Amino acid sequence: MSKVLIIGAGGVGTVVAHKVAQHPEVFTEIMIASRTQSKCDAIVKAIGNPAIKTAKVDADNVDELVALFNSFKPEIVINVALPYQDLTIMEACLKSGVNYLDTANYEPKDVAHFEYSWQWAYKKRFEDAGLTAILGCGFDPGVSGVYTAYAAKHHFDEIQYLDIVDCNAGNHHKAFATNFNPEINIREITQNGRYYENGQWVTTRPLEFHKPLTYPNIGPRDSYLLYHEELESLVKNFPTIKRARFWMTFGQEYLTHLRVIQDIGMASIEPINYNGMEIVPLQFLKAVLPNPQDLGENYEGETSIGCRIRGIKDGKERTYYVYNNCSHQAAYKETGMQGVSYTTGVPAMIGAMMFLKGLWKRPGVWNVEEFDPDPFMEELNKNGLPWHEVFDGDLEL
Amino acid sequence: MSKVLIIGAGGVGTVVAHKVAQHPEVFTEIMIASRTQSKCDAIVKAIGNPAIKTAKVDADNVDELVALFNSFKPEIVINVALPYQDLTIMEACLKSGVNYLDTANYEPKDVAHFEYSWQWAYKKRFEDAGLTAILGCGFDPGVSGVYTAYAAKHHFDEIQYLDIVDCNAGNHHKAFATNFNPEINIREITQNGRYYENGQWVTTRPLEFHKPLTYPNIGPRDSYLLYHEELESLVKNFPTIKRARFWMTFGQEYLTHLRVIQDIGMASIEPINYNGMEIVPLQFLKAVLPNPQDLGENYEGETSIGCRIRGIKDGKERTYYVYNNCSHQAAYKETGMQGVSYTTGVPAMIGAMMFLKGLWKRPGVWNVEEFDPDPFMEELNKNGLPWHEVFDGDLEL
Repeated sequence: MSKVLIIGAGGVGTVVAHKVAQHPEVFTEIMIASRTQSKCDAIVKAIGNPAIKTAKVDADNVDELVALFNSFKPEIVINVALPYQDLTIMEACLKSGVNYLDTANYEPKDVAHFEYSWQWAYKKRFEDAGLTAILGCGFDPGVSGVYTAYAAKHHFDEIQYLDIVDCNAGNHHKAFATNFNPEINIREITQNGRYYENGQWVTTRPLEFHKPLTYPNIGPRDSYLLYHEELESLVKNFPTIKRARFWMTFGQEYLTHLRVIQDIGMASIEPINYNGMEIVPLQFLKAVLPNPQDLGENYEGETSIGCRIRGIKDGKERTYYVYNNCSHQAAYKETGMQGVSYTTGVPAMIGAMMFLKGLWKRPGVWNVEEFDPDPFMEELNKNGLPWHEVFDGDLEL
Repeated sequence: MSKVLIIGAGGVGTVVAHKVAQHPEVFTEIMIASRTQSKCDAIVKAIGNPAIKTAKVDADNVDELVALFNSFKPEIVINVALPYQDLTIMEACLKSGVNYLDTANYEPKDVAHFEYSWQWAYKKRFEDAGLTAILGCGFDPGVSGVYTAYAAKHHFDEIQYLDIVDCNAGNHHKAFATNFNPEINIREITQNGRYYENGQWVTTRPLEFHKPLTYPNIGPRDSYLLYHEELESLVKNFPTIKRARFWMTFGQEYLTHLRVIQDIGMASIEPINYNGMEIVPLQFLKAVLPNPQDLGENYEGETSIGCRIRGIKDGKERTYYVYNNCSHQAAYKETGMQGVSYTTGVPAMIGAMMFLKGLWKRPGVWNVEEFDPDPFMEELNKNGLPWHEVFDGDLEL
């Protein structure tokens, strides 16, 4: 009996539900809950398995969550709601004795600020409760950490330089759309860049550093140095790292749109008064932009996300590049969602599977790289996100 | 006793109020009314003349307007509210026996469509009521029509080619802002272009045609062919015109911002459902963008608007260019508003003055070029919008 509760019925939630339903040997009972139950029902219908339950829950409301947890009694919650809601869901897990997994770290709603400290602060409480919390188990964060742990375990005595490289070479044929929740997407890109070097964090202006990087099966794409949350845990868990950076590709048109969105004030998370109502411009923009879940049908091309690592093995310097390429069309055919949702949702399912199989079960609050990467890497190959390795190539970095 | 009622307390309304107050010999009693009475009170305070009355009125509501007209009993209403409200105000004028003047033609709220037919349809009713309605008495439309009538009266036997050229070479030092109501501004620019040639209207794609034109004291600026409402009345009132066009300058950055605003759906006038409320994206954008009334303080540079005309005089071809340059800073020092509001508000005051002096008084509905231009041209020189003439120069068109 392994009951799983998925909270969130967006693009990622849809992928998680499809993937979880493909493993009845692990996930014997499934429930999907979100603020809008009809979205959950639509996912169940698309999967075609009426045994999957649905529920309505406000993930901002701890009492509602606790009531739901106590009635369904899941062994683990897969949280793919908004990152604002990580803490309320963790609180509810502690109150109900439920294990926890998410794909993006907590961020307060009123400041754009991605860091783990809020969630790490729960470590002792999860330990004392004998519960496992697995943080950041999507692709990046998630697979990026597993890749790094796998590299450390098998290919390096000492990882010195880590560059996580994230390319979306897809084309959704819209004038402008973001690939996941536009609110989170825009917050992430408009904040200062940050990377780690020689024991210190270096702050850059937003999108200050960029260079062309060549992605397998795609070619060169201009890649921008961003801050990304897994850097924080990876430099802590792999203290030999001298420099850790995160790069993401953006097209010039995307950046122009983003610049204008900021210029006109629509990226702001400060509410304005509109006819007597307080409305956050970025949230209104989200309602006007295409829904990322609707991009799949005409989405062509691939994503390519990986880790480029330089370090020492047996006294010699070596490089290692491990990556996955994911086709938007293949993801859409399997789950009805595009590749960005797919690459996030599949690892969340695998993380929950690792927990339920007892392989990643340890009271406390953990980042994915703190567990054994091998069984996870094996499941990636079986579940639509096969990985490839390049040894001693030119990292371009 | 010449009572004037100004409806609208935005940038243009502020200029009209300042200018009207400068002519107590013509405007013996003044009232400013708008949806927000505190805005009217602020204008009165800025002018420093406590004899000016204020009132609250919803210009969409004919009954409210009638009640206000019947209590204040103005001789003329200067309508500088939104163009959506032209018809309700004209209706109220007919019911209360009040004369009417506006600066922009009626446009229905739900379709972007500038044309005079709706207002011209009131001609017989104003005639029968013995009331005068003066349409489009800002700068363009307004002074552009007076310039054309003046050219026809004094310098041409036959006007053949008319190009109205509108340059704003100001810099407001904001990343992006529109110079007047952004809702109207964006509607105007995103519609198809249109010009008149050989008895026919020719439609262009939005901003399809552009060329650099040289403006006095400014230099060359890329100028875009737009449809502008005065073309409709001018080709009717000057049937010798073979071709009539309207050109407006835009910077590349402005156009990029505009393109993105459309791409992301924020220029749309179709309401979306946002948390259960119907909100028009363009109206929400208006609330987020800088208020055009607040641009004045740091606004540098000049506007330059004029008519470039080619035609026949005494059997010979000639050209004539008549224009005004207006300094944003000078406008701001005098009225607290920038030049775009100033150039619209001053002609509205002069039009009302023409009516009250009996010079432009004729039952019916009229465009400005149907009246004698000479006294109006004289007042332009006295009231901050002096004009200049160039004979037989290169029109570049």
